[in-house]
Amino acid sequence: MKGNVIVGQSGGPTAVINSSLAGVFKTAKERGANMIYGMQHGIQGFLNGQIVNLADHIKNNLDIELLKRTPSSFLGSCRYKLPDVSENKQVYEDIFAKLNELEIAYFFYIGGNDSMDTIHKLSDYGKSINSPIRFMGVPKTIDNDLAATDHTPGFGSAAKYIASITKEVIRDGLVYDVNSVTVLEIMGRNAGWLTGAAALARGEDCEGPDMILLPEIPFDPKAFIERVKELQKTKRSVIIAVSEGIRLANGKYACEMESVAGHVDAFGHRSLSGTGRILADLVSSEVGCKARAIEFSTLQRCASHIVSRVDVTEAFQVGTAAVAAAMAGETGKMITLDRVSESPYHCNTGIFDIAEIANVEKKVPMEWIDAENYYVTQEFVNYCRPLIQAELTPVMVEGLPRHLTLETD
Amino acid sequence: MKGNVIVGQSGGPTAVINSSLAGVFKTAKERGANMIYGMQHGIQGFLNGQIVNLADHIKNNLDIELLKRTPSSFLGSCRYKLPDVSENKQVYEDIFAKLNELEIAYFFYIGGNDSMDTIHKLSDYGKSINSPIRFMGVPKTIDNDLAATDHTPGFGSAAKYIASITKEVIRDGLVYDVNSVTVLEIMGRNAGWLTGAAALARGEDCEGPDMILLPEIPFDPKAFIERVKELQKTKRSVIIAVSEGIRLANGKYACEMESVAGHVDAFGHRSLSGTGRILADLVSSEVGCKARAIEFSTLQRCASHIVSRVDVTEAFQVGTAAVAAAMAGETGKMITLDRVSESPYHCNTGIFDIAEIANVEKKVPMEWIDAENYYVTQEFVNYCRPLIQAELTPVMVEGLPRHLTLETD
Repeated sequence: MKGNVIVGQSGGPTAVINSSLAGVFKTAKERGANMIYGMQHGIQGFLNGQIVNLADHIKNNLDIELLKRTPSSFLGSCRYKLPDVSENKQVYEDIFAKLNELEIAYFFYIGGNDSMDTIHKLSDYGKSINSPIRFMGVPKTIDNDLAATDHTPGFGSAAKYIASITKEVIRDGLVYDVNSVTVLEIMGRNAGWLTGAAALARGEDCEGPDMILLPEIPFDPKAFIERVKELQKTKRSVIIAVSEGIRLANGKYACEMESVAGHVDAFGHRSLSGTGRILADLVSSEVGCKARAIEFSTLQRCASHIVSRVDVTEAFQVGTAAVAAAMAGETGKMITLDRVSESPYHCNTGIFDIAEIANVEKKVPMEWIDAENYYVTQEFVNYCRPLIQAELTPVMVEGLPRHLTLETD
Repeated sequence: MKGNVIVGQSGGPTAVINSSLAGVFKTAKERGANMIYGMQHGIQGFLNGQIVNLADHIKNNLDIELLKRTPSSFLGSCRYKLPDVSENKQVYEDIFAKLNELEIAYFFYIGGNDSMDTIHKLSDYGKSINSPIRFMGVPKTIDNDLAATDHTPGFGSAAKYIASITKEVIRDGLVYDVNSVTVLEIMGRNAGWLTGAAALARGEDCEGPDMILLPEIPFDPKAFIERVKELQKTKRSVIIAVSEGIRLANGKYACEMESVAGHVDAFGHRSLSGTGRILADLVSSEVGCKARAIEFSTLQRCASHIVSRVDVTEAFQVGTAAVAAAMAGETGKMITLDRVSESPYHCNTGIFDIAEIANVEKKVPMEWIDAENYYVTQEFVNYCRPLIQAELTPVMVEGLPRHLTLETD
């Protein structure tokens, strides 16, 4: 492997984003990369000179194992969208000057839609100046909304976490002998993959949630209330999984509903309550029973203590495959996961032209949504189930999961 | 063991409350109990005739292991406080008639303060009518606020969960290169044990939270904001652990602060926002940086997927000890955990007169609170650390933790 390597992480983290970093690092090292740099806080940090020598921080195989189990982006992240080259050529010149200075031959960026846009722009600009640097995208996002790939690393672990705690909350909801409604607010502003994953909780020992509200389906408050009333006729504890991003038929977010919303801060500014809270308030007002909201919160993207081993492994594999593809001459591509067998489940890695991926959002297909019954179909469940299989035991030290940290601050 | 056994669960559940149930059931069975009944939804369900034969539901040792790993009260719970016998003698006559009908010789109640009050009243009434039935309390509460015992089963697992996810959230907070404040809202209305447990996150790989606000210390919004500003001078991500129950100097809950609060529902009713949200709003207004609140929510009492093995074991032991003590002739007592050695940590079980425990609330001692630095002392950490040690791996089926359910509905 001639030339140096640089790798960055961008966008929201996942519980396994560092497994991809481990995959890139370990593979590049094994294939003889000279220097393997990490950019802190993505391309934005890179522009500010925040660069580390990864070998100083990932020193042995134990560190690799800890890295795989460390939540949040090890290198830090950014939400920086590169301007078009027509708008600001200088930033591209700066980036390539720095890359050349570091003698970078391979550039890897682990991220979602926006990050793939970065790879797309950098590889296009590189081609335009005949740069030999190869740019490869490594997919990650809990939202599972990247096109071209069967699924994204990060989704399986988030789905496993959501389904596991949904089971626990369902049991918790049964504890008292009173009617109650519990609304679980789940991430995913536009795509309902994570919210649908709550359906995985349904099984031999759990009825699963009673309603699933996806952002792909317009939210009708009246029909919703009717449904809750209907469910309460036979169930004392009704559990509703809702995407934070559900919208009314007029396109407004449910959490902006005028009749309901309104959290006023110290200065009288109105801030938005969460969708879960709004729905719980609505149930409490209209149905008149005890209603509570539970926001699954940021843990959905950082609960490394309960990850899917399939997900960790695939996250590592896409890192490995990105290095292999770049060495084979590829650039301007993203690694994909291609499901080649359903039973037994098996995915190969593939590569896909990044131009066709960047900024495309993959939603839950309508045929996997049972809108009438407020649920996802069995096909949806069959698609998700293999992605949450098996565990990667945390390395427990003094009773808590041990993480690897980048001590540069 | 002559005569039958009945066992119930009461109050809020914990992640290990069913381990105590397993301890009572297994020990009673091994010692030759004839029938072992479970009351559904505590004494309230018992009064309504909701009684099950536990042997129908816990059939073998695998069921025992699943039961230990099942969150929320297996038998269901209630929040029913027995009236004084002077107010309502009838209810006592009803209870004892039912107990005699079932030929109960031993009555076990797994719960917190209110549940111990129930045991206290029943054993007193039993004595007054010369009933031979023996009544024993089995302690549980995540809040750790029971008197006489070193700690309560349920606390260790809640503490382990809180410390583990605090570590994950702390890492998550570092992901972007911007100033931010994260407020973690933790359970415990009057006692700060759980909130203090966030300090366990501090270690070789984690700085821990930056401030800990306990309900034992009056909350001063002005001093709080000053402290946040001070912390922000050196730290970009400030993490604050706050008890849901902190109060202002005037005794009002912080979440009732007039200048800040106010969540208005569909009918204009003002409902309380959570303490975490209120503090995040305050920071956002007064400090002007990005602030978010994360409510650790009900998962604190039902996250069986990450329990402390020490806690599970002790929960089982107090169940076992209750049966042994009742058989030895004790009644009107609660089992305690007595720490007989610090290093290595070891607890024995003891028994304590329930009259001195019921309705007494154990708070964090002032000498374990560093009010000036908004933290708990090393003594507090040393006290908690042994209680979160080791794990009990969930039994994973189809990628999710398997639970044992009571299929009676």
